[in-house]
Amino acid sequence: MSVFFKFLENNTVHRRENDYQLVDPVKEHKIICEKISNRFSLSNKSKYAFESLNVDLIFFRANKNLSTRKELNRKCLIIIDGLISKFRLSRDGKRHITSFYFPNEFVNLSSLFSDSGEYELHTHTNCIALSFQTSELATLAKSCPEWAHILWQEFAQEFAIAQEWLINLGQRTGVEQIGNLLLEIAIRSKAITDARNVEFRLPLTQIDLADTVGLSPVHTNRSLKILKSMSMLEISGRRVFIEDIHKLSNYVGFDPNYLDLNHKTLNNNIFLCRNF
Amino acid sequence: MSVFFKFLENNTVHRRENDYQLVDPVKEHKIICEKISNRFSLSNKSKYAFESLNVDLIFFRANKNLSTRKELNRKCLIIIDGLISKFRLSRDGKRHITSFYFPNEFVNLSSLFSDSGEYELHTHTNCIALSFQTSELATLAKSCPEWAHILWQEFAQEFAIAQEWLINLGQRTGVEQIGNLLLEIAIRSKAITDARNVEFRLPLTQIDLADTVGLSPVHTNRSLKILKSMSMLEISGRRVFIEDIHKLSNYVGFDPNYLDLNHKTLNNNIFLCRNF
Repeated sequence: MSVFFKFLENNTVHRRENDYQLVDPVKEHKIICEKISNRFSLSNKSKYAFESLNVDLIFFRANKNLSTRKELNRKCLIIIDGLISKFRLSRDGKRHITSFYFPNEFVNLSSLFSDSGEYELHTHTNCIALSFQTSELATLAKSCPEWAHILWQEFAQEFAIAQEWLINLGQRTGVEQIGNLLLEIAIRSKAITDARNVEFRLPLTQIDLADTVGLSPVHTNRSLKILKSMSMLEISGRRVFIEDIHKLSNYVGFDPNYLDLNHKTLNNNIFLCRNF
Repeated sequence: MSVFFKFLENNTVHRRENDYQLVDPVKEHKIICEKISNRFSLSNKSKYAFESLNVDLIFFRANKNLSTRKELNRKCLIIIDGLISKFRLSRDGKRHITSFYFPNEFVNLSSLFSDSGEYELHTHTNCIALSFQTSELATLAKSCPEWAHILWQEFAQEFAIAQEWLINLGQRTGVEQIGNLLLEIAIRSKAITDARNVEFRLPLTQIDLADTVGLSPVHTNRSLKILKSMSMLEISGRRVFIEDIHKLSNYVGFDPNYLDLNHKTLNNNIFLCRNF
């Protein structure tokens, strides 16, 4: 596979609304099942159980807010295309982003067996997602140990990211926080190959970044400028280019292990070639 | 039950090492099972399955560090008495605390079905805990849907706290951060009754508080002083007294809902009597 082709595949040019009609839910359901199966080695029985779930294909326009009590009430999503964040507004209207959800990731998984409280979600791009009834996923987890395993692992991954973000917010400088966040996004948007550099689409504004790490927009802008002035990264429009992942990671103290609890996805890439 | 008696029961005077020999693991196992059963309405079959697990009683001295790769390798704990925190040291030696574990809470639950990475734990008091083999708990979750439910809910609670802490670190002032943390500790150490005031033991130093919210010790000290000067709280030795929970909660923007995903434990207390 050529680098260019790989790039196109991993950094999807986010689809337009019209493309929605071209997406076949049954086919997408199968593709997602296949992707999960590749990561977790699903038995045929478990694949069949997953493919038998009722599923809707949902399209959300960019820049919409959704609520886990309204639009996503008793629903879990798997994102096919796009980027969603979870956020909370404080009583004085300040927003804090507590999670991002990238393609192939579950949204609202914490509601599977418990009330997860009310959260708002925001679509940063047009999004296409498969939508499952929470109750059906819960039944699947109960009746099929392989799926109980998978859903727990997906949830444990989300928890590990939240814990890492606590460290990011609590102990790191602005430059380190922004560097860590961008490297995490590069990995989660599957942009990192075995090359030393990486280019990826970042459908976030500087205010989004600020509201994720808890810095002011000015401090965020200054941190990005410092990284740019050190040639650690370039930003052009919505694209980010990191010339040397290894160098940036070392500089900002990024360790990708928390993103790879199953030790599969990061295999054979730059991070495992180097001694972090 | 008199208020005094309730107070003693809830704010346990942390036991000394000698008391360890007085604790009967079989009895404690049954007591924990009964407590969980009261919260989640366990069937007799599920109670029996839990009581049939192999369990060790462990005593840890105060101020010890434990690792999820060493002392807690393939083990989950339920704390009977004491306070444990989970923390990570940054490469320049700065500590950040990402979780606390109070009596009746599970420790290391994220390792149940996945590798949760290496974390260090710290005992802030002498601790007594029941220790389970992770593999046995995982088998219990697979064979018994009621337990799959409970373990997921416990984990979802831990996740909800981590998300709330992200908001605390990201968007709140020092005074608000410290106020929110102290109110959470008051609830999780079961100190809150139906009275408007609360007194509880806080086995944490100001540096522990600082390393939890990501403030400097000086900023933490100043925030505590502000709360004291406003008569929001008093601290005497290791005891904290909050004269009006409602007033402090309003002032620092604390909403206890995230601590009560099952809507059981907070029933009949001050928080549900008021319109938050």
